[in-house]
Amino acid sequence: MFLIFPLRAVPIMYSGLNILLFFLCIISTLSPTLNHEFHPLDSLTPSELNQVKTIVNETIYSSSSSSSSQSLSFHYVGLNEPDKPVVLSWLSSDKNFTKIPPRQAFVLARIDHKNHELIVDLDASSVISNKVHDGHGYPLLTSDEQTAANNLPFTYAPFIASIEKRGLKLGEVVCQSFTIGWFGEEKTTRVVRVMCYYLDGTVNLYMRPIEGITVTVDLDEMKIVGFRDRVIVPVPKAEGTDYRQGMQKPPMNSPTKEKGPSFALEGHIVRWADWKFHLDFDMRVGPIISLASVYDLEKDEYRSVLYRGFISELFVPYMDLTEDWYYRTFFDSGEYGFGLCAAPLLPSKDCPENATYLDGYFISQDGTPGKLPKIFCIFERNAGDILWRHTETAIPGKVFTEVRPEVSLVVRMVSTVGNYDYIVDWEFRQTGTITVNIGLTGLLEVRGSPYTYKDQIHEEVYGTLLAENTLGAYHDHFLNFHLDLDVDGYANSFVKSKLQTTNVINKRSPRRSYWTVITETAKTESDAKIHLGTSAADLLVLNPNKKTKMGNYAGYRLLPRSVVNTLLSGDDYPEFRAGFTKYNVWVTPYNKSEKWAGGTYVDQSRGDDNLAVWSLRNREIENKDIVLWYTLGLHHVPCQEDFPVMPTISSGFELRPANFFEHNPVVQV
Amino acid sequence: MFLIFPLRAVPIMYSGLNILLFFLCIISTLSPTLNHEFHPLDSLTPSELNQVKTIVNETIYSSSSSSSSQSLSFHYVGLNEPDKPVVLSWLSSDKNFTKIPPRQAFVLARIDHKNHELIVDLDASSVISNKVHDGHGYPLLTSDEQTAANNLPFTYAPFIASIEKRGLKLGEVVCQSFTIGWFGEEKTTRVVRVMCYYLDGTVNLYMRPIEGITVTVDLDEMKIVGFRDRVIVPVPKAEGTDYRQGMQKPPMNSPTKEKGPSFALEGHIVRWADWKFHLDFDMRVGPIISLASVYDLEKDEYRSVLYRGFISELFVPYMDLTEDWYYRTFFDSGEYGFGLCAAPLLPSKDCPENATYLDGYFISQDGTPGKLPKIFCIFERNAGDILWRHTETAIPGKVFTEVRPEVSLVVRMVSTVGNYDYIVDWEFRQTGTITVNIGLTGLLEVRGSPYTYKDQIHEEVYGTLLAENTLGAYHDHFLNFHLDLDVDGYANSFVKSKLQTTNVINKRSPRRSYWTVITETAKTESDAKIHLGTSAADLLVLNPNKKTKMGNYAGYRLLPRSVVNTLLSGDDYPEFRAGFTKYNVWVTPYNKSEKWAGGTYVDQSRGDDNLAVWSLRNREIENKDIVLWYTLGLHHVPCQEDFPVMPTISSGFELRPANFFEHNPVVQV
Repeated sequence: MFLIFPLRAVPIMYSGLNILLFFLCIISTLSPTLNHEFHPLDSLTPSELNQVKTIVNETIYSSSSSSSSQSLSFHYVGLNEPDKPVVLSWLSSDKNFTKIPPRQAFVLARIDHKNHELIVDLDASSVISNKVHDGHGYPLLTSDEQTAANNLPFTYAPFIASIEKRGLKLGEVVCQSFTIGWFGEEKTTRVVRVMCYYLDGTVNLYMRPIEGITVTVDLDEMKIVGFRDRVIVPVPKAEGTDYRQGMQKPPMNSPTKEKGPSFALEGHIVRWADWKFHLDFDMRVGPIISLASVYDLEKDEYRSVLYRGFISELFVPYMDLTEDWYYRTFFDSGEYGFGLCAAPLLPSKDCPENATYLDGYFISQDGTPGKLPKIFCIFERNAGDILWRHTETAIPGKVFTEVRPEVSLVVRMVSTVGNYDYIVDWEFRQTGTITVNIGLTGLLEVRGSPYTYKDQIHEEVYGTLLAENTLGAYHDHFLNFHLDLDVDGYANSFVKSKLQTTNVINKRSPRRSYWTVITETAKTESDAKIHLGTSAADLLVLNPNKKTKMGNYAGYRLLPRSVVNTLLSGDDYPEFRAGFTKYNVWVTPYNKSEKWAGGTYVDQSRGDDNLAVWSLRNREIENKDIVLWYTLGLHHVPCQEDFPVMPTISSGFELRPANFFEHNPVVQV
Repeated sequence: MFLIFPLRAVPIMYSGLNILLFFLCIISTLSPTLNHEFHPLDSLTPSELNQVKTIVNETIYSSSSSSSSQSLSFHYVGLNEPDKPVVLSWLSSDKNFTKIPPRQAFVLARIDHKNHELIVDLDASSVISNKVHDGHGYPLLTSDEQTAANNLPFTYAPFIASIEKRGLKLGEVVCQSFTIGWFGEEKTTRVVRVMCYYLDGTVNLYMRPIEGITVTVDLDEMKIVGFRDRVIVPVPKAEGTDYRQGMQKPPMNSPTKEKGPSFALEGHIVRWADWKFHLDFDMRVGPIISLASVYDLEKDEYRSVLYRGFISELFVPYMDLTEDWYYRTFFDSGEYGFGLCAAPLLPSKDCPENATYLDGYFISQDGTPGKLPKIFCIFERNAGDILWRHTETAIPGKVFTEVRPEVSLVVRMVSTVGNYDYIVDWEFRQTGTITVNIGLTGLLEVRGSPYTYKDQIHEEVYGTLLAENTLGAYHDHFLNFHLDLDVDGYANSFVKSKLQTTNVINKRSPRRSYWTVITETAKTESDAKIHLGTSAADLLVLNPNKKTKMGNYAGYRLLPRSVVNTLLSGDDYPEFRAGFTKYNVWVTPYNKSEKWAGGTYVDQSRGDDNLAVWSLRNREIENKDIVLWYTLGLHHVPCQEDFPVMPTISSGFELRPANFFEHNPVVQV
């Protein structure tokens, strides 16, 4: 007989003896009436849980006429917390003179195959409510019953025959219990479907489903009530599925792998983990990431991702129509120089201890070069995040956890354009993902006003009263990113992969709907102008000339973190000038002169030479060297917390590989 | 004369002499033809920038007929990078035998008050292109001209009189140059508006605007061409605006402040920085955060934020209609127990070195309690982020930077529901913000299939071919959060603050549009059912009985990180059962029995007892004890990178104070 833990509910539980010993040790410290600081919302302690068991058992078996035949199983026990007013009043009272709110348990139990809801009062040691649920549905599955159900097929002859017919070894099969939902059946019984998987050379059972066999188990009777062997489907191979550290092939002799965790800087080339890119400074746009490519262990080569990426323009319109405010529709890059405004970074404060700092150079009005010291920092980020993990408990005799903590590399610049401080992070991840994060902090632009209290205001003031005489004006930030992706080569296509609801007709399934993926390749620029936020879609840049071994096109996805659209009307002057805000995404063919989405001469520009105008030519973009332009936005309704200095608010986006690699590139990490 | 740095463009530049010395030192290492590893995308070096200056000067002054009267200013110089094919071909060539791509500069200059675009070839030491831009607009402002413009008012008698008239000290005034945009004027000149601010007791000039004075400066002529003193408006007071460390009042004697950076755990109460909350475990929902409250330094008291918050249900529908797949519409919490599936955390891998671990307890089928060891970790997160910062260069004789690195406290649990591993982070920030982050990793659910290459597939397979015989099924994850917010007390209202475009009529402003904020208070449950993603709106829970000193209602904002809606049709069975996915946001009055959005008996439920049904009663929710329910979703189209184990993908949301505090609570940090 197999000892199989249930797959979908796997408490890592100590043996009964240990639990008892454990309780004896802690009972004196955890009992709420003793020296443990009691709180009315504390979950039930082990001793309280034991009390619940005892009280329920005694009640059920003593009250029953046919006590010995009663079946009882516990499906959920939790604190039946006191009503909120009771909790709040007790917390604000003098604890020495106030009675502790009642300790009660809420229990979902199956008693004689019926759903019971019990409330157990621990102080009174009694069940104070016992309701039978006559309605539909069943409580949580228990671990024990899942284990029992998963074991049934192994003693069921037709199942054994089906496994043999497939040439599989029964000893390498593991099963799990799947809830079956509800699809309009008039009558239901408490059944699950048991699905089985094959190990034989891997621990990654989930990648080796044994399809075609339907096993239905009645949990109350704990027996197989349905069995069908419908069709034989190949079980996917074990090779390449085992994710445990010890099972990885030694990584090939990659130069980057040998350098250890920290990065290398040669000239302007940064190498870190699997990444290689060129980093440089421009007085207009700030950091430019060029030729970012990622090492593919399997192919033993660097593969291109991003030829050139930078913030091409920023647009900051204020929403105040008063005399000296209406015109405040700043273009921080084309008017003031986003790079020129780079702030020298404060070591150990702007960037962590492990950061390296770089300088930049600009030209001053008379042509003399000037140095901008410490305007970039580069550091490994250890944020406590998890790169990937899994705990496996479904394999007899094995419980293991594999976890890889995440480390990434961040390139940071801060541009202080007058009052606002923009924090720009280009983050390179081991997975092949590039994450761009924009933080906004610094000082608001405020307008002086006679008001000292909100109720005095009876006119439109275009902002929030932040402090006496101080109105924080409503405004937006739009950052346009020039992303010249070269996904595994320069000839790429832009594909919108729509997730589309399909209604099920002709009763071909008990389901009535599902969604599927409809891909549309943009032929010309107008196909690629996209308003996000109205429909579910993946946005992909694919290389139509490069396929994986499975036949999928090598691609990268754009994943905006949030979607913010312009609220200016289409005929407004600032909107002409910031035409790039009309859509969230644009795609153009590569053209060296089209760098800055707001145009070259932005100060007092009229919107006659910018991204919106260039793309009117509606050039062909399929299987061409293309540039993706993404506009990230933030609406800012100031609040008092933004005074006198703003806590950082942030937004960003990701460029994430999608069928670019043959498999997860960080299995080997 | 004042030495005033321009505000919006502030390079931190060394003096001319230092620059020269500096260049002499580095010229031998940075010259591209010497031992520096050259790259065709390297920005121009200081020596190259000097060459540009020399070449442009020589060309302009030698070629000009009236050389001495020519004016020349540099507004932008950047690398004129070689064409992409040239770069790519050079990079893949043998560097020893291939000519280095040409080094060229792209220059935007004003020559005799005209916009010029020059291309300077550094190898040929000549200007190879000099185009006059006859179109609209002007190049970037230089720092020098901004400084000059900002100084003009101080020698302009009417301005001095205006300052005196307001009783302000001229020596405490600082000014900055604002670009003026374009609002349909036929003819433009190169002008800026100079706006002035008042110091006198603060460095936070931006909080002390001097309103009512309009100064227009012509940058080419460098003189004031317009001046108006329209109206006198109070200058906001200096008090409370200075954000420098040394200027903060010593923090009051707060017990939490004394404990230093790490957290304290007493019973189930966690105290950290300004936060205090109760943390406990439930076998159904996992972590429950209760009674989270934040210490208000100014009020010297803890103020309530969240009475109870937890994941109330998870819904994971697969989009595969085949025989043993159509029913896979799992409710991970109500069917399997999200807490019951908690994985023991691996120290130093699942959580950083500085983490503390806690155990949880569940009840097994026969009522025996079991221990789930190390299912929570609590740690201080130092991710390298910036809490707030500012670099100030506008004040004569002062340049300073104030930066506060961010530290937050994370409570983490991982629930491994069979194949999927959910990482749940509740992050408490010093700003009063609670960030919830959900990571998804582990193993996909895949279907075996006969296919080994995509082109073989001529039927609907409901997924991506990830590996031979392995289809990764399309699916969704929806997590519903029960958020019983008690913003500064239990009686709260739910307010939708819409950002609404207004068209400007009757030419009351040169602008044609702007947006303003329209607030709507939800009276009943139906008012609060919200589909996000169609319009810009802030979602707020306000306390209508508590106002700030400024008269704003104390509130918290819900900020979803991304918006994902259900794609199942409204008449589909799983959609009845997971009614909470119909809207992104719901609000109900507090009712102790309404905890789990999918209902109590979820296995084979019929959707007759869940959030969607409860809220049909359309109860009153204004100025009541209310619960906010937020449904977070992810659509998952698997890709090969998800095989054999998935890199973590994540989503989340924030609860952020909005006029809850009188001012930024972390100025004192």
